[in-house]
Order: sequence, then structure tokens, then C-alpha cells
Amino acid sequence: MTFAIGIEDVREAAARIAGRAHRTPLMTCGTLDRVARRRLFFKCEQLQKVGAFKFRGACNAVLSLSEAEAGRGVVTHSSGNHAQALALAASMRGIAAHVVMPSTSIAVKRRAVEGYGARIIECEPTLEAREATAAAVVEETGGTFIHPYDRAEIMAGQGTAALELMEAVPDLDAVVAPVGGGGLLSGTAVASRGMRPGIRVFAGEPEGADDAFRSKEAGEFIPQTAPRTIADGLLTSMGELTWPIIRDRVEAVVTVDDEAVVAAMRLLWERAKCLVEPSSAVALAAVLDDAFPGPDELPAVGIILSGGNVDLDRLPWRMNASM
Amino acid sequence: MTFAIGIEDVREAAARIAGRAHRTPLMTCGTLDRVARRRLFFKCEQLQKVGAFKFRGACNAVLSLSEAEAGRGVVTHSSGNHAQALALAASMRGIAAHVVMPSTSIAVKRRAVEGYGARIIECEPTLEAREATAAAVVEETGGTFIHPYDRAEIMAGQGTAALELMEAVPDLDAVVAPVGGGGLLSGTAVASRGMRPGIRVFAGEPEGADDAFRSKEAGEFIPQTAPRTIADGLLTSMGELTWPIIRDRVEAVVTVDDEAVVAAMRLLWERAKCLVEPSSAVALAAVLDDAFPGPDELPAVGIILSGGNVDLDRLPWRMNASM
Repeated sequence: MTFAIGIEDVREAAARIAGRAHRTPLMTCGTLDRVARRRLFFKCEQLQKVGAFKFRGACNAVLSLSEAEAGRGVVTHSSGNHAQALALAASMRGIAAHVVMPSTSIAVKRRAVEGYGARIIECEPTLEAREATAAAVVEETGGTFIHPYDRAEIMAGQGTAALELMEAVPDLDAVVAPVGGGGLLSGTAVASRGMRPGIRVFAGEPEGADDAFRSKEAGEFIPQTAPRTIADGLLTSMGELTWPIIRDRVEAVVTVDDEAVVAAMRLLWERAKCLVEPSSAVALAAVLDDAFPGPDELPAVGIILSGGNVDLDRLPWRMNASM
Repeated sequence: MTFAIGIEDVREAAARIAGRAHRTPLMTCGTLDRVARRRLFFKCEQLQKVGAFKFRGACNAVLSLSEAEAGRGVVTHSSGNHAQALALAASMRGIAAHVVMPSTSIAVKRRAVEGYGARIIECEPTLEAREATAAAVVEETGGTFIHPYDRAEIMAGQGTAALELMEAVPDLDAVVAPVGGGGLLSGTAVASRGMRPGIRVFAGEPEGADDAFRSKEAGEFIPQTAPRTIADGLLTSMGELTWPIIRDRVEAVVTVDDEAVVAAMRLLWERAKCLVEPSSAVALAAVLDDAFPGPDELPAVGIILSGGNVDLDRLPWRMNASM
């Protein structure tokens, strides 16, 4: 079976985005090690440009366009982080970006996309409306549609985070990433297993958007319907290109409820000072779940913290007045 | 005039704490560079052990004790970060720590001190009560009192953050640190000017606790009375050892009001994903203030982000319900 990407694609992406994307820091935290009863290594993509790993894939995709393609600009639909990422990557190459965003997108993400100079086209918050609107924009502009996850250059770009993680900590026993559309997870699996064939790859997924878990159980792709979770970056279904890699190269998907996600997010904020969004906390919540293999079996685990674009006016815990 | 510490003390402290304190990451942020119209380099002490630079000084002080001294333990009074730092440094050396804390200390800081195995002794929230209670504990235990800032080993330890900053970015035009008691600021001034004699050193200080500003203006030490600011790490007066260095080795103290502090904190959280406490944001607020030299004069500025121990249940902006 041939997959959409291999380790060479990830290495080429890494070379392409070098000097443009940040080589993000790796964090460790004694308190979280004690909580997890093992060594944890956090790859801090909340410190990536635009505050999320998404810049890696977007940057790789934009830089992979021919001059002629680039001249007509890029188009996408996104609930947020990919939109910001593509907007910035496009502006860095000096080309136009047209971003279809659901009307429900949070303010901080809309402001950021506009700040990077992209044109925003609003649509209804459904996948159908997004796709139809994006198709119309492609028709109008002749631009290249850059899917948020189901595109080889995007997947390879996202894999560069795990590549850097493996370079920094070559003896990891396992690596864990959150799964939404599967761009990050598929890239992570290809990169980490390409670097270290014996490494075990896991996904964290919200119970309320568990298409990857159910698809793995069934052995066939089951699309997500009516997702409901605080992890708003993980609402989408996997893609045609990401699913086969997740099926064959990811050992297991561990699902967690929103309460566990918020608890993990709070731990990351309070003890590790990692300002991450709920979607990132899903991966730590998975490691802390009983379904995850114990510390004797997996004593050193790498976790991809996917992003930090949280609405600071709407945090998932009760606030006391302070000013 | 002889100062309490010189660059050699900072270098010795760096050697002493190496492998025990984190070598914290340096961050840059394109958005904040645009806001400040210059290149900013953030030394991220919120990612230091215990979430603050204070661990550097405490670790250096504890490791500088003789075996006999160490056996009798250490004592301090602190509103928070120094207490955690000393508790952890003591536990790492396997000695007792007795911490006098004001009854008004925030919950997250008390929990953390207890978590590091220290004994907490409560007192009234006045400097007099703190000092009297600490003296009684020293009397009782024979332990060594480790002042939060007015002690050479503490000041030298705090200076190691600037030492690392200067090693990473040798061509900085200026460095800025917040000032409370002056341990961080004095160490920063000695370290950065020891590494690069021409560098210009500034302090950020809250308007509501502006003893350093007023002392510099008057040319003589004026103690702080009735401080009132959201930057709860900067309430104290300077010390006898820190003031002479601040007087002679710091170019200027820039004062900022709480509104500017909260705005700078919000920028650091939202755009740089740096989860810092208000006291840290004071330094960025100072750089963004009109009183700070412009970008043509100081195009590359290093900022010490001092810590991230903020009470996540009491953030200084209005919250909307989210769960």
C-alpha cells in the first residue's frame, strides 16, 4: 500500500521551511513527569508562528507552488489556525490568500487572519457551506485550493514537528499527537517511525469527535457527524489521504472527555506555563488516561502540543473578579 | 565604591546551578516586534523551575552553604516565588526549608510551596510581621535566613538569566528587567554590563510601587510605603545591597500604570503565548512606554520575563462564561 507521504517528503519539507518556520522549543516539567509517572517531552507548537503547528504545513504547501500557481494566490476554508497559517505563508511569499471562515469563528482567530493580510469570506458553519464557498472562490480567482489537512504537502509539513522532536530526543518510546483531520497525526507517524522504526505512535481524540477511534475499531473510515467537544480544533473528519496512514501507522487512538481535556489544559498552564488551546491538551489527557500504556512500558513519551490560539476572554474554568 | 557582587560572582553562580536550573528558552515574536518597532528578545524565566527566575538565586544560595549550615536548614519570608524557589532548592539538597508567608498569599503559590515539602508559617501581611516571624524561626531552628533579594548569592544567581541572554544575543543594545526588591535587576545589570560594557540597562516599575524610580530621582534610597499595583511580585522596597548597583549601574527606571501592565500581559499571552505574571509584563510595558528610548536608538532589546505564577482563577480581564 502506498501512502500519500513518506519520510523523504517530511525531510524535504523541513529543508523548505527552514528559517521560515520556528524550530520550536522542547519543554520538560518535573511536576508533570510526577503526575504522569514518566518522562514527558513537549514539542511546543503553540510557540510556532501563528501559534500552531499549522504554519509548518501551510508554509511547505505555499513554497511548493510553481511561480504561475503562486501568482494566482491560494484559497482555503478553515475554522482558524490553518487560515492564519496560510495567510502568513502567503504574505511571506507575497501572494494573495482567500480564506473562507465559518461565521462562528472566534474573534482572536479572525483578527489574526485579517492581520496577516488575507481576504476573509464568511460562510455558514457547515462543511458543505465551507466547501461550496471555497469552490466558488477558486472559480473566481483561479487560485490553488490548499486543504487544511488532506494534502501531501500539508501532511509532510506537519510532520516536521515530530522530526525535530526525534532529533532532540532520539530514544523516545512513544509519541502522541491529537487527531482532528489527521494532518498532524499522519505527518507525526511518518516522521517518527521514519526516524525510529520501533517507536510507538498514539493519538489523543475527544470523545465528542471520535471518528478516528471508531474508524480504527471498525477498520474502515467512518466520517464524523455532529461533533461536540471543547477541543474546537479537532471537530473535522479525517481525510482520504490521512486515514490510511492513521489506520496502518498509528497503534491506537485514546479518547478523552472534555473534563479530562480541561484538567490537562489547566495542568499545562499552571505547572508547565504552556499556554495551549484545548485541542493540544487532548494529547496530554490521553497519556494520563488509564487506556494509555503504563510508565514501565513507555517511560519516555513525546507529546506534540499543537497550538495556543485560545480565546482569553472565554477560558474553560470559573473566574473570580480581579480588577 | 564596592558592590555586593561582580561579574565573577555571576559566572560562579552559573557554574554552580548548571544542570540544576533550566537554561530557559529565548523567544522572539514578529507581532510584538511590530508593536515595539524593534527586535525584542524575551528570556523566558516563566519556564524556569518553580515558574520564576527566583530559582536561580535560591539554588545558588542553598548550594553555597557549608555542610554544617545546610544541616540546620534555611528560613525565609516571601510573598510567593522566592518561597517556592527556596523550598525546591532545599529539597534538592535534602535539607529543611521554613517559609514565613503572609496570610494573603494566593492559593497557587501556597500549594506549590507545600508541594515542594517546605514548612509554612503564616504571618500578618506586613514587612514587620514577616521579619519578626522569620527571626523567631531562625532562633528556633538555627537555620540560615535567606533573604528574598538582599543577599549576594541571591543577586548573583538572578544575574545568570541575563548571562545566558547575553551569550545567546551578544549584540543587544539594551536589557530591561522589572524591579521590586532589586535582586533580578542588580544581577541583570552586573551580568549584562560585565559581558558587554556598553549595553544600556533599564528597569520597568509599577507606578504604584515606584521606590526605585523615586530613589533614582532623589539620588538616595527612599523606601516603598503602601504599594498598590497588580504586579504583586514588585511590592517590596529595594535592599541595602541591591540599591547601590541600581543607583550606579542602571540607566533609568521607567514607570508604568496597571492598565499598561495588563495590556502588555495580554499581548504576551495572546500573541507570544508567553504565560507570564503581571510583574513580568511590567518590563515589556516599560519598553512600549513613551519614556523609553526609541527604536532607532535601541533597535535590539532583551527583556527578562521574570515569572508565570499567576492565579488562573483571577485573571485581570473580564471573562465570559465558557462552560
